[in-house]
Amino acid sequence: MKIGLDIMGGDYAPKATVLGAIAAYESLEPGETLVLIGDKEQALPYFKEQNFNPDNVEFVHTTEVIGMGEHPTKAITQKPDSSICVGFRMLKEGKIDSFASAGNTGAMLVGAMFSVKTIPGVIRPAISSIVPKLKDGFGIMLDVGANADCKPDTLLQFGVLGSLFAENILDIKNPKIGLINIGEEEEKGNLLTQATYTLMKDTTMFNFVGNVEGRDLFNDKADVIVCDGFTGNVMLKLAETFYILTLKKGFKDEFFAKFNYEQYGGSPILGVNAPVIIGHGISPPEAIKNMVLLSRNMIQTKLIEKITSAFK
Amino acid sequence: MKIGLDIMGGDYAPKATVLGAIAAYESLEPGETLVLIGDKEQALPYFKEQNFNPDNVEFVHTTEVIGMGEHPTKAITQKPDSSICVGFRMLKEGKIDSFASAGNTGAMLVGAMFSVKTIPGVIRPAISSIVPKLKDGFGIMLDVGANADCKPDTLLQFGVLGSLFAENILDIKNPKIGLINIGEEEEKGNLLTQATYTLMKDTTMFNFVGNVEGRDLFNDKADVIVCDGFTGNVMLKLAETFYILTLKKGFKDEFFAKFNYEQYGGSPILGVNAPVIIGHGISPPEAIKNMVLLSRNMIQTKLIEKITSAFK
Repeated sequence: MKIGLDIMGGDYAPKATVLGAIAAYESLEPGETLVLIGDKEQALPYFKEQNFNPDNVEFVHTTEVIGMGEHPTKAITQKPDSSICVGFRMLKEGKIDSFASAGNTGAMLVGAMFSVKTIPGVIRPAISSIVPKLKDGFGIMLDVGANADCKPDTLLQFGVLGSLFAENILDIKNPKIGLINIGEEEEKGNLLTQATYTLMKDTTMFNFVGNVEGRDLFNDKADVIVCDGFTGNVMLKLAETFYILTLKKGFKDEFFAKFNYEQYGGSPILGVNAPVIIGHGISPPEAIKNMVLLSRNMIQTKLIEKITSAFK
Repeated sequence: MKIGLDIMGGDYAPKATVLGAIAAYESLEPGETLVLIGDKEQALPYFKEQNFNPDNVEFVHTTEVIGMGEHPTKAITQKPDSSICVGFRMLKEGKIDSFASAGNTGAMLVGAMFSVKTIPGVIRPAISSIVPKLKDGFGIMLDVGANADCKPDTLLQFGVLGSLFAENILDIKNPKIGLINIGEEEEKGNLLTQATYTLMKDTTMFNFVGNVEGRDLFNDKADVIVCDGFTGNVMLKLAETFYILTLKKGFKDEFFAKFNYEQYGGSPILGVNAPVIIGHGISPPEAIKNMVLLSRNMIQTKLIEKITSAFK
């Protein structure tokens, strides 16, 4: 198994990414190889500083970097030797089994769709976000930003993608799928959610538990929260604000601590032909490490194969 | 000035509403009269208990109540002597200058639109929600649930309504209007927000400051947050969850305390021909009192006249 990691992605790269890679290495088993993609010259001093043998990992040297603020499609076209482009090329060619980066989110999304491409039958891939649950464990919300406008059949598919992720990666049996809405009753909502409800209530593809509301994100009503990417993105950013506020105000609490994305590392893009994970721009080493371990988990559980056969 | 209050509305009515009315009375000036609408027999014992002279307020006896779970339009049609129906009839006939209730939200919305009706030129009235700001004071978000599907021109009008409310009721000079979106740049968003941005950036009707994100609800980027009623409702319920969590976990903080809706009493429906306020179902006396004082403020500042001339 070869786990690809972009060491140039993120606000604190390459220091945070290299340190994260070293930390991840300690958790890997024989046969699980980390493939670092980026500027080797910039990485070597950190290996040395940590007394880490560079031969423990594979290295693919790249000369270009896609910046956080660059236009995704333009950057992908104009920087073929960037760590993100090289990573996706290797993923497409099967030289790595997964690819993760804390770099430019748009470039990661575009790169995934241009290289490994969307799984046949999937209308639109989604960016998912792992959300902490009050009781224990985690749930998943999708889409959180890849698709600002969605159609009912796209949301229905997000239910399938989320259900398989929850079952395989979060170890939830028969996960409960909820549709974000503005009331519990079937007839509530906007045109999109009303039509989606009608599709979801008849589906046999997952365990639909009905509408959920903004107040249900952290409770046990649903393990998988389905929404369009506009609503999901607004919710995610609002939730992050509260987490940051509790930090600033010095509130210490087990639940709020679970908002720390460092624990789970990144947001998987679901619906493409390989495990692809986008990390938070401000990812520290701990987040990078967990992004690598999440990649491994997605490879080990054969999540992509399971999604592919669900859409056959 | 006659301030109408439904004493049958809310989960703790009529006790909470009558106690709230008594508390509000203490803050009223000569010439400001509270008109209580509801079952007089049920209210009198609470007046007696509080040694409050019933002659301090006007009373309009009603025999029916619209329950919290009833279908709004049906209930409005079938219960003409309910406190909500009588209140709106009086408001339409000019017998009261404002009407507030912590009862059935849908019935309040339908009642307002059927009786005093939408202000000429306003496409759709909006339910607004007062939101606390981290620095100090309050802002306003609209729509939070009256319109699950919106068009760009409707959102543009919400900007006008919110701007006038912020200026007149929240005392903010030249209020900053922000559009909820999933990125700051003009081209970001879904079809609705992209088209709305184009309208808003050219408007002279208010001070548009551009896109704001989920993370900006409580900061100073915008005083008025404009969004469709689906997004607003989901955000509001998510924000409430956090407030409830901080309470449950015993976090005490000045900012989080401002989430307590008791402080501002209720959510004004903006865009109808009279001041109408919907209170939270679980309103205690303090919230009812502040709903009455907000009603007075809306009458005193002639907010409705100002909105009407803005749409002429």
